Amino acid sequence: MLTVNAFAAVSATEPLQATTIERRDLGPRDVLIEIAYAGICHSDIHTVRGDWGPQTYPLAPGHEIVGIVTEVGSEVTRHAVGDRAGVGCLVNSCGECTSCRAGMEQYCLVGITPTYAGVDADGTITQGGYSTHIVVTEDFVLRIPKGIPFETAAPLLCAGITTYSPLHHWGAGPGKSVAIVGLGGLGHMGVKFAHAMGAEVTVLSQSLKKREDGLRLGADHYYATSDPDTFAALAGKFDLIVNTVSASVDMNAYLGLLKLDGTMVNVGVPAEPLSLNAFNLILGRRSLAGSGIGGIGETQEMLDFCAEHGISSDVEVIGVQQVNEAYERVLASDVRYRFVIDVATMR
Amino acid sequence: MLTVNAFAAVSATEPLQATTIERRDLGPRDVLIEIAYAGICHSDIHTVRGDWGPQTYPLAPGHEIVGIVTEVGSEVTRHAVGDRAGVGCLVNSCGECTSCRAGMEQYCLVGITPTYAGVDADGTITQGGYSTHIVVTEDFVLRIPKGIPFETAAPLLCAGITTYSPLHHWGAGPGKSVAIVGLGGLGHMGVKFAHAMGAEVTVLSQSLKKREDGLRLGADHYYATSDPDTFAALAGKFDLIVNTVSASVDMNAYLGLLKLDGTMVNVGVPAEPLSLNAFNLILGRRSLAGSGIGGIGETQEMLDFCAEHGISSDVEVIGVQQVNEAYERVLASDVRYRFVIDVATMR
Repeated sequence: MLTVNAFAAVSATEPLQATTIERRDLGPRDVLIEIAYAGICHSDIHTVRGDWGPQTYPLAPGHEIVGIVTEVGSEVTRHAVGDRAGVGCLVNSCGECTSCRAGMEQYCLVGITPTYAGVDADGTITQGGYSTHIVVTEDFVLRIPKGIPFETAAPLLCAGITTYSPLHHWGAGPGKSVAIVGLGGLGHMGVKFAHAMGAEVTVLSQSLKKREDGLRLGADHYYATSDPDTFAALAGKFDLIVNTVSASVDMNAYLGLLKLDGTMVNVGVPAEPLSLNAFNLILGRRSLAGSGIGGIGETQEMLDFCAEHGISSDVEVIGVQQVNEAYERVLASDVRYRFVIDVATMR
Repeated sequence: MLTVNAFAAVSATEPLQATTIERRDLGPRDVLIEIAYAGICHSDIHTVRGDWGPQTYPLAPGHEIVGIVTEVGSEVTRHAVGDRAGVGCLVNSCGECTSCRAGMEQYCLVGITPTYAGVDADGTITQGGYSTHIVVTEDFVLRIPKGIPFETAAPLLCAGITTYSPLHHWGAGPGKSVAIVGLGGLGHMGVKFAHAMGAEVTVLSQSLKKREDGLRLGADHYYATSDPDTFAALAGKFDLIVNTVSASVDMNAYLGLLKLDGTMVNVGVPAEPLSLNAFNLILGRRSLAGSGIGGIGETQEMLDFCAEHGISSDVEVIGVQQVNEAYERVLASDVRYRFVIDVATMR
């Protein structure tokens, strides 16, 4: 066992604090990563606060992880000491179901092993990236291309792949009109990807506050959803809408923005059920879909796409002592566009 | 003007009764059809009773129409006197929008002209198939292949195309597992089509009452949705679910029956909004979609498919005097599987 420094929740209600956690001894197919940066995802907050169910504490969250490989198991072939490595939202899956065999491990029918707050094969609770080291089986370790600065790469592992995957799957590209709903951690990556894929990109944000940012990130158009004229002006305009907002939105209004055969994809999970009139699907053969993160192969493809197109996340790097404050700012949507913890401050 | 016999609603609350309506003089591109049979669709009842908004009376419903061409306008090229002809849910569209140009006139962006209770180009209210004759512009007249008995062909024009279109669009075929929800006028056609397309077909009906029928129509499996075990037994089983039921169903339960990348298509419009948890879409990248009737070209394709595969509707032929009684039986789901009016009884 390896005892390592971490910054973890000790209960659902207290601030996160410095502690130690244990990492398993390296198995033959395991990779030890010295973590350099860990992104802060909204899910981290929901999970440690018990919003999605009770947890075992201490719990170090974090599933946007980049670092350097410092040791590999005897049978590891895909990674070597010194490699720039990444770990995203999952650290294992069954490997045998139809989803896994199709390279869509995130939809493993047996159930994935989440990077934190999951039950590992040995029965222990997985611990995430707010820590100095992590041990992960090699198949779930990504390569971070040299072209991507380390601190801006971390958010690609969740915010990046979560928007890349639906854009890629539903064919964002030249001639396609794509709307990104919400310009936060996910949304700002969605804009960059859709633009790099060649689509005409519209941001639908609550206000025009971040309009300049949106256009700089690659949007062609920017509309405020608080303005009812927006929904009239954009009726029947989009082939694809990627909704990154977890708050409830008026589904009927958004479905009205889709073209014939258009699709609205939700990547966030609002607390309330989605409510919509079936007629808004029938009219124009529209679809409402969902998409969750991405498979391992697809995540690597996304990272390579980022290197090729000079894309990475816009981040605000913080020391570990600022994590609790950062959580409050994430909840207030006061970050452009992702907090990333400099894990050097944790050693 | 041609004054013709019809059987029409005279108000939202009174029984339908014999009356006369007027048909326009034949324009150069019009076709006059002597109607042989007209199917009774659930929508007929909703419309004449004002459930979907106030109407102008008298109103003859009916959009499942077959008959013989008895006269054609001077510029008509696609139909000739003596042809077996059909008319479905729409008798015109703009012809110029992207939907019309793509052969999907049912999604006309300007708005279709419904076969009855719509506003025609001349400002009159369209009158449907419960009448002895109809005048329709040639582009909206279908050819009924000789192989299909006339009385069983009528329901193909609405119930048939409404189920054929989504099955065809979402790729029902060999290796695909398809569920048809509801075994009524639409559902029984859905089973026949999905089976003929080569899919493995499961009927999901409230009870097992029509099980023998379902298997005879081509279903491989038949389950009762009133049995909660059904939803456990069939979890993750279907590539495609076509929901023909207009009553509200538990969307989350049905979405759970879809495979990775599976789609549930609604062809009915429940009065209440659909309510679902976004997580049930995200898990397995599922889609909830809608589909409305079909385009004119696709409707012809469906009719030709029926002739080729020896498919048509299971009907109960009635005289016009039985229409009001038939309406009550439709509302009680007491018909296997479509009432068709023998229009000879109207002359």
